[in-house]
Amino acid sequence: MKNPLSSDFVIGFLGAGQLARMSALQAFRFGIQVAVFSDRPESEPVQFMTPHSVSGSFDDVESMLDFAKKCDVITLENEFIDSTILEELRKRSGTPIFPSPESFRLIENKLIEKQTFEAAGIPVTPYQLISKKEDLFQFGEEHGWPYLLKSSKGGYDGYGNETVKNAEDAEHAFKKLGGEKGHDILAEAFADFTHELAVQVARNETGYVVYPCCETVQKNHICVAVKSPAPVSEEIQQQAKELALKATEAIDGKGIFAFEFFLTTDGKLLLNESAPRPHNSGHYTIEGCITSQFENHVRAVCGLPLGSSEMIKQAVAMINLLGTHNRNAVTEHAGSAISEANGHLHSYGKISSKKGRKMAHYTLLGDDLEETYNRAIQLTEGIEI
Amino acid sequence: MKNPLSSDFVIGFLGAGQLARMSALQAFRFGIQVAVFSDRPESEPVQFMTPHSVSGSFDDVESMLDFAKKCDVITLENEFIDSTILEELRKRSGTPIFPSPESFRLIENKLIEKQTFEAAGIPVTPYQLISKKEDLFQFGEEHGWPYLLKSSKGGYDGYGNETVKNAEDAEHAFKKLGGEKGHDILAEAFADFTHELAVQVARNETGYVVYPCCETVQKNHICVAVKSPAPVSEEIQQQAKELALKATEAIDGKGIFAFEFFLTTDGKLLLNESAPRPHNSGHYTIEGCITSQFENHVRAVCGLPLGSSEMIKQAVAMINLLGTHNRNAVTEHAGSAISEANGHLHSYGKISSKKGRKMAHYTLLGDDLEETYNRAIQLTEGIEI
Repeated sequence: MKNPLSSDFVIGFLGAGQLARMSALQAFRFGIQVAVFSDRPESEPVQFMTPHSVSGSFDDVESMLDFAKKCDVITLENEFIDSTILEELRKRSGTPIFPSPESFRLIENKLIEKQTFEAAGIPVTPYQLISKKEDLFQFGEEHGWPYLLKSSKGGYDGYGNETVKNAEDAEHAFKKLGGEKGHDILAEAFADFTHELAVQVARNETGYVVYPCCETVQKNHICVAVKSPAPVSEEIQQQAKELALKATEAIDGKGIFAFEFFLTTDGKLLLNESAPRPHNSGHYTIEGCITSQFENHVRAVCGLPLGSSEMIKQAVAMINLLGTHNRNAVTEHAGSAISEANGHLHSYGKISSKKGRKMAHYTLLGDDLEETYNRAIQLTEGIEI
Repeated sequence: MKNPLSSDFVIGFLGAGQLARMSALQAFRFGIQVAVFSDRPESEPVQFMTPHSVSGSFDDVESMLDFAKKCDVITLENEFIDSTILEELRKRSGTPIFPSPESFRLIENKLIEKQTFEAAGIPVTPYQLISKKEDLFQFGEEHGWPYLLKSSKGGYDGYGNETVKNAEDAEHAFKKLGGEKGHDILAEAFADFTHELAVQVARNETGYVVYPCCETVQKNHICVAVKSPAPVSEEIQQQAKELALKATEAIDGKGIFAFEFFLTTDGKLLLNESAPRPHNSGHYTIEGCITSQFENHVRAVCGLPLGSSEMIKQAVAMINLLGTHNRNAVTEHAGSAISEANGHLHSYGKISSKKGRKMAHYTLLGDDLEETYNRAIQLTEGIEI
């Protein structure tokens, strides 16, 4: 790969949402050009930030080929593409793709992901591929009701997940998730946990950087807030960081990766989900750490040395600002949040707001975690988008 | 003006260089769309960052009119445009322009600028408009040789400035600067100074924010480095900040402004130059302060509340990375600089490098000013661009 600090170097993003947008901003700071391939018909966040924009389908190598040839390196902001497609795209275009199709293959659906990390000695929540109806009942009896049914591929923010309380529920959910059409459906035991934790890892041929262990606060399977560092013991934080690095190494990851853990009531860490890309749990790193997850994403895929993940202040809180209306996007009543010293608003430039849609986030730095978190909530609770 | 946090809000930049580029990056973080009007034939830094790009002349209101109508607010990154043109553009497009044509008029050439600030009680270096050849000799006799001849409009980075040692020199320089063609030429006494200082001020209807007083290190009239806070007494720092605020108020400035001072050998501050835009002396604020000059530029012209200028660490050094070759731009041997914790490289995405051209900069945060400055120099001295 040529020197990424050349004026004609182009990084290509497959996906044009806020994760690619915040990464693109970091590519620009290195003087790198940005190209984007979107699979959506409507205008997406990155498309306002570059003259190099193409639309098409992630299933169609042909439609991605010209785009890929114009890029010096390609990266992704979601998992909605098959590793075989990625591999073919890389082969036919000659353009490197990071994370690599090989890394991608090891986590590209929830079943393979769990097998990969289990094989690497990383504890995961108990799970089972549902191969026949009877499995639905037996899994509940064995691991307890309620449990989770998940489509193996394509879920996010709670989509593709169903909580089932009994056999009838389970059969209904199995059908809803496409189990009868042959989609792979996974049963997953409910973990009895005290905290949901997350760790980001950046890694490439120059080395690796592990971010602090943070806590994600979830409502209805959507991350609504993040606190960093997580209010758990240093020992647990350290364990989570070690597991995250081990998981990154298990897939020979090059790029930025996020790992979500349950801290169970009996003090054990279980890997819940992984993401081969910047992650909502790491948005706080933009102002919270010396080098953000987005900057290290760009550095990692471009082969640049990685930057420090050290925190700037003692504590950070990040609040997701979800759409409060269905309307053309406009952020209202954000004055206090913007005025606050150490407070930082990020809006994603989405054209339409929808109730519950991730539209923006707010980061507040402070000295005391709970105080900072409470203040951030107070500053953002009146915001309407 | 409509809410700048609307998804279809567009900020327009007149000028497409690195100052507009770094401001545009901050507009994006608020979800604001960016449009750019360039007066250069070649591809300029901002043009890689937006699909909304137009080229033309700053002298031609007609060619800027469609551009202006598509913007919700317009701002500038240089002074190479007449206030009358700006005023006509605002009138015909109906689009607000900040800093306003009225503010602009008060500083639009070096003569008017000095008169404005003098009238506001701000000490400036002794100067005189050269109206006839004899003035060249008399000014030298009165204020001492050598002195400076400056074209009143359009100079930057030493272009448009000539140091003259005697009457013969002065006549030659006067001619070179266009004095015989009727260009206004200003004589300016050499100030005997110990430090060159700079202060940025952001101001709009919500209030104002004054940045720390920093030191600019100049070589051949080009800023090569900045140290912040400046290694001068707190009293001098405070005085410089007060003068900078006073100067901003004198022109009823809305936007971001920079003021450069001489600290004379007898401990007095003289205002040297002002800029109604982000300034090289404030690049260190990107990582050095809670809110950068670029973010406050965007906030100020969009009418948003301003952010804190408090420093993140005790000391910051910023090194300008000037072109070392005439070639397609590529940054080499920057590995150590990039790897350094607390070190931050910014490259402007210029296509061509020229010897001495401002191509990139490097910021290092630390605890001790001289140590940080020396380390930053050491980390960047091998970089070739």
